Amino acid sequence: MTLYDCIVVGAGYAGLAAAKTLHEAGREVLVLEARDRVGGRVWTKHFPDGTYEDYGGSYLGVQQPQMHALAKEFDVHTFNVPTKGKSVLYYRKRAHRYSGFIPPVAPWSVLDLGVAIKKFEAMAATADLEEPWKTPNAQELDNMTVEEWMRRHVWTRSARDMMRLAVECIWGAPASRISLLHGLWYSKAGVSLTVLGTSEHGAQQQLINGGGQAIANGIHERLGEMVHLGEPVTRVDQTSGPEVIVHTKTAVYTARRVIFAIPPPLVLQVQFEPALPSPKVQLLQHMPMGATWKVFASYPEPFWRAEGLRGEVASPDGMLGIIFDFSPEDGSRGVLMGFVVSSRAHRFADMDEHARKKVALQELVACYGPRAAKPTKMSVHSMCNEPWSTGCPVAGMGPGVWTGFGRWMRKPVGRVHWAGTEVATAWSGYMEGAVRSGQRAAGEVLEILNRGR
Amino acid sequence: MTLYDCIVVGAGYAGLAAAKTLHEAGREVLVLEARDRVGGRVWTKHFPDGTYEDYGGSYLGVQQPQMHALAKEFDVHTFNVPTKGKSVLYYRKRAHRYSGFIPPVAPWSVLDLGVAIKKFEAMAATADLEEPWKTPNAQELDNMTVEEWMRRHVWTRSARDMMRLAVECIWGAPASRISLLHGLWYSKAGVSLTVLGTSEHGAQQQLINGGGQAIANGIHERLGEMVHLGEPVTRVDQTSGPEVIVHTKTAVYTARRVIFAIPPPLVLQVQFEPALPSPKVQLLQHMPMGATWKVFASYPEPFWRAEGLRGEVASPDGMLGIIFDFSPEDGSRGVLMGFVVSSRAHRFADMDEHARKKVALQELVACYGPRAAKPTKMSVHSMCNEPWSTGCPVAGMGPGVWTGFGRWMRKPVGRVHWAGTEVATAWSGYMEGAVRSGQRAAGEVLEILNRGR
Repeated sequence: MTLYDCIVVGAGYAGLAAAKTLHEAGREVLVLEARDRVGGRVWTKHFPDGTYEDYGGSYLGVQQPQMHALAKEFDVHTFNVPTKGKSVLYYRKRAHRYSGFIPPVAPWSVLDLGVAIKKFEAMAATADLEEPWKTPNAQELDNMTVEEWMRRHVWTRSARDMMRLAVECIWGAPASRISLLHGLWYSKAGVSLTVLGTSEHGAQQQLINGGGQAIANGIHERLGEMVHLGEPVTRVDQTSGPEVIVHTKTAVYTARRVIFAIPPPLVLQVQFEPALPSPKVQLLQHMPMGATWKVFASYPEPFWRAEGLRGEVASPDGMLGIIFDFSPEDGSRGVLMGFVVSSRAHRFADMDEHARKKVALQELVACYGPRAAKPTKMSVHSMCNEPWSTGCPVAGMGPGVWTGFGRWMRKPVGRVHWAGTEVATAWSGYMEGAVRSGQRAAGEVLEILNRGR
Repeated sequence: MTLYDCIVVGAGYAGLAAAKTLHEAGREVLVLEARDRVGGRVWTKHFPDGTYEDYGGSYLGVQQPQMHALAKEFDVHTFNVPTKGKSVLYYRKRAHRYSGFIPPVAPWSVLDLGVAIKKFEAMAATADLEEPWKTPNAQELDNMTVEEWMRRHVWTRSARDMMRLAVECIWGAPASRISLLHGLWYSKAGVSLTVLGTSEHGAQQQLINGGGQAIANGIHERLGEMVHLGEPVTRVDQTSGPEVIVHTKTAVYTARRVIFAIPPPLVLQVQFEPALPSPKVQLLQHMPMGATWKVFASYPEPFWRAEGLRGEVASPDGMLGIIFDFSPEDGSRGVLMGFVVSSRAHRFADMDEHARKKVALQELVACYGPRAAKPTKMSVHSMCNEPWSTGCPVAGMGPGVWTGFGRWMRKPVGRVHWAGTEVATAWSGYMEGAVRSGQRAAGEVLEILNRGR
């Protein structure tokens, strides 16, 4: 039986990055992936007509050097999303077109929102990225939700609604479920709240030609047979001798070290022997996945561009909270991609397919006019329904979690190390964070292996 | 192969009550329990010298007719905890003895606390026990944590500390992690916050002779071979035909219906085919278990009684948040049982056994004098460390959970029904709630079976 230097559980961006790093260091690696594909929460569905849709993560943003380096290494082209033209604010059943960053609400709401974001970002600057529980006033910040902070510091209804929307799109969860400390930490980890919330110069600046999964596919191709698809790990045994025994449905493997790179709640499905320490289990129980649905509407052309629109909508009270232009770079088709997030996602889940498409189309028409009413194709998808994701984009941390159990986030348990975008200390929740977390975990393992342990 | 009318997963009080109800209705029942004992989160550890300690639930309270009826049916004796003598408030490193309900803090704090509890209970009275999301202003109440409500409505430091302590003891979680809607609902389900927090005329009024597990053992004896111990359920298959196929590590069973009666996060460890609906999965991900440790100190006699003490301590800022007299009814020994809850439990988990005992003894001595320093026996335990509990006493619901996914709490999924104390609509979190939830789930199943479906 092969003794692997490291078994990586999960072939999302985190797992693939870990495996790549270990492989390049000359180590014997095995990647065990439950699904029949790589990419994890980044899943590009290809259709027979050559088109594709990103059911999971799509975007690259500014200050994401690792992802851009990988794109270059695997010769994957990226392109800027359209930023010319007006955006739409769909609010209180009315669509308002506007240019630039300032939404068309009352000036006092604009001011209110601006001041609030500035305050939030000033606080975020104090967050300790490596050890969030060591942030000044961590306990106080972690006892409060982002919603509570907003109720205290944001005064106008529109500004609150706008900020809530940003939070819900970022985490797929309501502001009332996100610890303020977590919100600050996460924003700083992704540069700033403004960067996380914007396309131009922001986290949604670029699309990947061929879809979000294209770079993962490149890594997969390079690793080849090192990656086993369709093999969910069921049991990890550290009780017998210096090796870890990893069981899947169909096989048993041994390794010196193991890296877990799967969504936090799914770790709880694996049987560990000995059992994981109770604070680690409780941490994982306190990391529920966010809820996001995506709606794709395809048209013969990106008709909104001719009308001076960039294809971007923000809707604090609509079903589609955010809409982006997801058309291919050459504009050979028009594609609008809408996000249904947080409590709206729960309502959406309760509707049938027909009702979902109907409400989405109504809002597309309200924002883009009658031409939006007749898409050539429409599809609706949620990673919540994928048993190996159970939610998207990321696990959110409620009050008291970082200060209560945060120390267990990255702490190895025996010979098991932890990766995954939630574990990242920069760009947590993004592909960039996933890759960095994988590289860091691989670094931990290499350091130990190189010392001959 | 036997076709069971119903397979019950879990032999805690909920599962046992469900099985008993079905069995008494003449139905063929099988109970599959992962552990080598019944009782679930109620676990009485017996020692060779004839003594015992309750590592899990212990108490029966007022207005708990089902548990008292079971005690009678299985001839298990219950007795009132000592309520004569003074209580101790251990606060800011000083022990204050006092009589009655009013803690020895400044009169304005007493007033503040009294008014706050009255306000809280008035709001709780409006909670919809069956469908908490239909409570008036449910959305607003569910967007807020109990901590936030306290910051707004409780003005003095001592009153806040006292109320936080109550919350932490009730849920094993900080007030910042409990939705106000959940707090109100849960309190009403257990009569009132006052009842939940007190011994005399409260939820901690009675102890069970032989320990909390004694009644469960009686039911187990009655059900006999219907209960399989040491058989964790791994897979539930509803894809093939009208029967449910239930897999354990060692066997496969079929049944017309299945009742799950295990802690919510553990449901996520079971493989369901087809997968559970995503809102049900997300609900379960949002139900993390509380954290509680118990410390038992035994003495030749309950020496504190002679000093006019009832053996009850409340400590808003000590490690042992609450201490109760756990001596046997005849007073042949003295036993103090201390609770370490919530964030204190996380700190406790990080300490070694020696340090845990040391800090506990220091506080016992501070409260009861030098005689407390020399227990004949001392033990420390947490259900957090039990892989089939992962926490205690109960799963707590954060903001947005009831209004977001509450509809999925009891809704059957195909032929699978849901029991467990979290699912109860009265006395959720208590043995009484567990039993009622089991009886209700059995009723659902019986109604369907009786209609021949």
